[in-house]
This record gives sequence, structure tokens and C-alpha cells, in this order.
Amino acid sequence: MTHFKARVLVSLRPSVLDPAGEAAKAAANRLGVEGVKQLRIGKCIELELEASDELEARSRLEFLADRLLANPVIEDWTLEILSGSSI
Amino acid sequence: MTHFKARVLVSLRPSVLDPAGEAAKAAANRLGVEGVKQLRIGKCIELELEASDELEARSRLEFLADRLLANPVIEDWTLEILSGSSI
Repeated sequence: MTHFKARVLVSLRPSVLDPAGEAAKAAANRLGVEGVKQLRIGKCIELELEASDELEARSRLEFLADRLLANPVIEDWTLEILSGSSI
Repeated sequence: MTHFKARVLVSLRPSVLDPAGEAAKAAANRLGVEGVKQLRIGKCIELELEASDELEARSRLEFLADRLLANPVIEDWTLEILSGSSI
């Protein structure tokens, strides 16, 4: 078995409005930070998973991202496997 | 001026409970995905910023991460500058 660390980044699709991001962008301006052209808030899910190999881990994580972690109607996701160590 | 793309990953400190993450972990099990040992939900803020150079961009983004995007009492953050292109 191998112990994997991975993260799934979930972001709103570009066509979907992000009021929280707009509010944070306006707040950045009020704090005196100039030059912020875009700011969008998504989710970062950090996972640790035990699986027999990276292919197996990737397939389980893609399933989870698609069915549980992101809403594919309004969100995109990307999977990053950060490390794997034998146990 | 240079146009930078960056992201700030905000995660709960390890000592802080994450009930939403625990619920997602339990849901993963119910979906039949085995081997998930840990699952924690954080934020991923994607930014585009114009600044004179990378040092300037980094300093503005660190300020924003510390003051606006994360709550340093319960959250850690990391900054990743993804790209910079002259404009």
C-alpha cells in the first residue's frame, strides 16, 4: 500500500458570478492594495489516501472530485497528487 | 508593469476541527471510496495582479493573505505565484 497526499482545487466556472470574490476585491482596494484585477474564491480540499498504486489513487480521487467535492454544473476542479510513500 | 497570476491557499490550522471535512470524509465512505485517511477543506483564492516586479507583487499578496484572505488565529496560508507576463 502507498500513502498519497493530494489536493483537489475547486473553482467556480468563469461564467458563474462570484459575489464573495468581488467583495474581497473591493476590500483589497479599501486596504490600499492596488492593481488587483481579478479575485475569485474557490475551495482547496486536502486529502490523504491509501491505495495500491497511483493509478488507483487517481481514479478514486477523480470519482470523489466529480461526485462529492465539486458541483460540475457551476464548478471546475483539478487534481494534484503531491506525494506518495510506501507504508 | 507585469501581470501576475497567483493563488493563495488557506487551510485550517491542524489543531482546529473541520466538521465540514469530517462530513465529506464520511460521505466518501458512503459512496464506496475506501482508504480516505484525512480530508480537510480549505480555500483557494485565485488572483490576477498588476505590479512592477515579482517582489512588489509578492509583498502585496502577502499583505492581502495576512489581513484579508486568512484569519491567522485559526488558519495558515501559502502563496504561489503561477506566472508573470509583461504588459
